[in-house]
Formats: sequence, structure tokens, C-alpha cells
Amino acid sequence: MKMLINVAETVVADALRGLAASHPELTVDVENRVVVRRDAPVPDKVALISGGGSGHEPLHGGFVGAGMLDAACPGEVFTSPVPDQMVRAAAAVDNGKGVLFVVKNYTGDVLNFDMAAELAEDEGIQVAKVLVDDDVAVSDSTHTAGRRGTGATLFVEKIAGAAAEEGAPLERVEAIARRVNACSRSFGVALSPCSTPAKGGPTFELPAGELELGVGIHGEPGRERRAMMTSREIADYAVDAVLDDLRPDNPVLVLVNGMGATPQLELYGFAAEVHRVLGERRVAVARTLVGNYVTSLDMAGASVTLCQVDEDLLRLWDAPVRTAGLRWGC
Amino acid sequence: MKMLINVAETVVADALRGLAASHPELTVDVENRVVVRRDAPVPDKVALISGGGSGHEPLHGGFVGAGMLDAACPGEVFTSPVPDQMVRAAAAVDNGKGVLFVVKNYTGDVLNFDMAAELAEDEGIQVAKVLVDDDVAVSDSTHTAGRRGTGATLFVEKIAGAAAEEGAPLERVEAIARRVNACSRSFGVALSPCSTPAKGGPTFELPAGELELGVGIHGEPGRERRAMMTSREIADYAVDAVLDDLRPDNPVLVLVNGMGATPQLELYGFAAEVHRVLGERRVAVARTLVGNYVTSLDMAGASVTLCQVDEDLLRLWDAPVRTAGLRWGC
Repeated sequence: MKMLINVAETVVADALRGLAASHPELTVDVENRVVVRRDAPVPDKVALISGGGSGHEPLHGGFVGAGMLDAACPGEVFTSPVPDQMVRAAAAVDNGKGVLFVVKNYTGDVLNFDMAAELAEDEGIQVAKVLVDDDVAVSDSTHTAGRRGTGATLFVEKIAGAAAEEGAPLERVEAIARRVNACSRSFGVALSPCSTPAKGGPTFELPAGELELGVGIHGEPGRERRAMMTSREIADYAVDAVLDDLRPDNPVLVLVNGMGATPQLELYGFAAEVHRVLGERRVAVARTLVGNYVTSLDMAGASVTLCQVDEDLLRLWDAPVRTAGLRWGC
Repeated sequence: MKMLINVAETVVADALRGLAASHPELTVDVENRVVVRRDAPVPDKVALISGGGSGHEPLHGGFVGAGMLDAACPGEVFTSPVPDQMVRAAAAVDNGKGVLFVVKNYTGDVLNFDMAAELAEDEGIQVAKVLVDDDVAVSDSTHTAGRRGTGATLFVEKIAGAAAEEGAPLERVEAIARRVNACSRSFGVALSPCSTPAKGGPTFELPAGELELGVGIHGEPGRERRAMMTSREIADYAVDAVLDDLRPDNPVLVLVNGMGATPQLELYGFAAEVHRVLGERRVAVARTLVGNYVTSLDMAGASVTLCQVDEDLLRLWDAPVRTAGLRWGC
């Protein structure tokens, strides 16, 4: 398996060096693996911190910047960051208004963010946490108890980040983050496995002519394998899986997310089918985002995330954001 | 070869439907394959039109919008659009100030844009053309005489688009576009071939353990094949190939472009090595863009484009842009 890397051991550090060189608006501590807004701590602002295993870029380091995260803590590939990273991040961004940890629901992440919260509080930093668990595919999976956290993380970080940027206090930022998670559901499919640098090859087997319905972002098993389906059939399956669990009364934000190796030409064709199903199910669409945002290294496939929004959440979604991975209005 | 599609015949139309559904700020004529700014024709503004074979998304349809292109004409996958598309586009966006065709140097594109220019002029539309030929890898290739047009197309469209948005007349927009092309050079590498929907599999063979140095964006042969190299070695080779042909006195814009299937984690690691080489060669970097911008379907690999900029070009680069694929400042 050919990869555009030096050696597996330095993949995360190399990527952080590249992030630092390419984005002068970030402060990147390559050794300690913390990515911080250069203007942090921002006065009178609740700080948002997230993190998780690497391999899902631009999540999370690519979402650090004005209007979104104040800091991110990347772990090794598909491996939770350690509490020390989160405590360093909290110390770097807190200005006394408190920090919100945005945690995807994987056992390692949850344990380490919990420990980091205790350590940070010992240092006098007020910490709130929100758990993201939007993936309807399965309950209890390889890496977690309960539902996995996937595409909704982007919505939580963007919308709660906008609220923080407006000056909302910690309780409100936390409440908004919880509301966004509660209003979001995701479902993903894999057409190919992903390959980690450490392994140097695929982390799971997916026979020719089959796809994995409900795959996790680390290649965890989903609901079932089937013979390859059309874009139309996949959209029907994925959107209906989401709508079985979330019946939106309000318009939705739609994320049509590429897993990493799916061409944008295919992704937009899939977006057309997702819109078609939503139309048939009489779900109104407020905004759509199509691209590689919550990836699984070189996996081919896509996921759909819907987030039901009221006017307040939509306004926060539309607010300016300036990060490496998501940018508008500034 | 599994693909997230319905059938090969509808891939381009399906993607255009998805573009239309996801971006209400665009007017997409799916049948005639023309993507237009919804607010076109924009009063008192030179209009920019580009196009080319599909499979390189977000180029060109993803670069239609305020501050960049007024219209794009997507052909079939890796196939030139036809003159009728370009004439329709010109009629839709021209307001009497004239249009600039941005043409990548491939034989079919050049012929068809030439014919379209004649037809549009017959209808009273003033047309200027700029040819993009930045790829230093080879002169005369599978699809073209002279150098191929690749990553510099993004710089030409963005910077000339900003000049047009400011109200510059056609001669100046054309002159700026030519200057950007003259100041830009690219070099790409492939770690894997790309697969077209029509063929349903790879369009060329690349043995395990080898890479193609100087590959074209349709998988055209480059300079040579070698045993797989590290990210560091590839960056040395690619940047030196560019600098052999362009010795910048001014700072450069750097595009570290993914070919489609290379994970962002790898791409940022490669960006670090590109920055290292540039530092060693004493080339100053003004701005860096890392991501999938000028792609080759599901090819794994990356390209480097440098564009030497003076203060005027840098200001135009930084100007607001609002497209599906590139957005800031608005």
C-alpha cells in the first residue's frame, strides 16, 4: 500500500508541521500535539476544545479558528489523545470564562476527556463537556458503548463555536452544543476499507462487489453487507436510516461527507440522490455542505448527516467562520 | 471497481443535479451542461468562463461564483466540452463588457474554445482567451501539444476573477490572467491510477511499489517511473522540477493539491516537506492552499503549483471569493 508519507511513526507530527506552515493563523505545538488559535485566549469568550484520533481530517485541527474551535488535540491515527494534551489546550485558551470539551463518543476519548476535565478543574478552569453520538448505524460498536460520534461533530463545533464567538456564557454554549447533537443523526457507507500507516494496508476486508452499510469512521462494522448498490439505492437506505430516528419538523442542515477517497464528482451525484430522497420524504433543506470533512483516511464511501435547525441554530450556522477546513464570511 | 454512482452514462448529469441542489447561488442547466452564477450577468463586469472535461472537481463548476468564474462548461469525464456550451455560457453572462475564456492547454479544449469564440463574436460578444500551460513535467503529451494546464488554472481563475469583480476592463483582466499563468508552474505525482466510470477500472497501469513522476491530470505519462519514494523525496523532486523552470524573485502562492484519493493527513505532511524545500531554496511563501482542488477522479497522489506574486496579484488573491470550492471574505 503506497502512501505519501515519510515513515508511519512521524505521520501525525509531519501533518502538524504542514498545518503550521500552511496556516499562520494557527499556533501548532508539534511536540505536544496541540493546535490553537493564534489569537487565543480570546477575551471574554468561552473556549471550545475538541480532539480525537488522527485520520479524520480536517476534523479537528482543520476546524480551529475564529467562529469554531479554540484548540484541538490530535491523537495518533485512530487513537485517542491523552489528557495532558487537553489540559495544555485548556490552559492555552481559557480566559476565565470556561471551556467546553466536544467529545466524540468513543471509549478512549470519553475516558481521557473526563480525566482532563478533572485535571483542568484542579487548575481552576471551569469545564463543561458535550458528548457527540449521532451515528444511528449501530448501538455499541468496536470502539464504544452507545452510538458513535461522527458527522454531527462538525455541526456541534460550528454552531456552538458561533455562539461562543458571540459571547454566550458557558451554560448557553453547552446547551446549544447538546441541542445540536440531539437534533443530528448520521449514517455512513464504505465502498472500500481504509489503510492506516502503521499497518501499511487495509484495516478490514471488504470483498469486491460488496459495500458496508453503516460503517464507522474507523472502519467499524455497520448494520450489514450487501452486493454493491447504486447511488440512488444507497441514498434511500442511508437517509431512511437517519429519518427512522429523527423526524424533522424544521428544515435540516445536510452534510454529504466524503470518507476520503471518493471523487467529488461521485459525491455531488450522491448529494443529488440525498436531496431527492429528502424531497420525497417531505423534509425541507436549509443548507447543504458537500465534501471531505469527517474522513477515514483513504476509505471510499460517504456519510449523510442531518441536523434539524430552528432560526437561532441556522443563524449560528451562517455566522462567519475562519478555519483551514471550513471558511466563510471572513 | 466500485463507484458511488448510478450508471456511467449519467455521472456528469447526476453531479450537476447535486451541485444545483446544494448551491442555490448557482444556476445549473443540467441538460445543456452550463453552470452560471445566479446573479449573472453582473452589471459592468467582465465575465470569466472556463470549462473542460469533468473529473477534476471542484475545477471548474466549483469555482463559479462571486470573485471567480461567471460560468463553467463541464464536458464528459476527461473529455472537452463542446462549443455550444461555451456559447450558451457567454450569452448567459455577457453584459457588453466582454468575456474571458480560461482554457487549459489540451487539444480538444483549445479547438472547441476557439470555435466558441468565433461563434460568440458572431453574436456580438467580445471574447478574449487565456491559455493555461503550467505543467513542467513534459512538453507534448497524450492530449496536448505543449505543456499541459493543471493547478495554475485555480490561480488564474481566482486572481483574474478578482480583477473582473473590481471592474477591470477586458484587456486588463486578460493581461492579469496571462501574467498569472506566466508566473505559475506545476508538477504532479501519482501513487495510483485513476478509474473512469465509463471504463469501470484504472485507465493506466502503475505497478505496486512504483510511482509516476510528472503525471498529468488525466493519468498521462510523466517524466519517469521510480520505486516508491518518501514524502520528503517526492517534495524535493517536484519542487525542484518547478524551480528549474521558475526562479521566483517575489514570494509565491503555494498550492499543495490532492489528486482525489490522498488523505488530508498525508497531504499536510507533504505540505510540510514542500515548505521545507522552499525554505532550503530560499523561496518566500506568501500564501498556502492545501486540499483537493484540481483532481483526477480517484487518483492517489499530489501536485505542487507555485505562482510568483507581486503586491497587486497578492491583493487580488486575498480578495473575497464565494464559490462551492473556494470561499473566503464573503
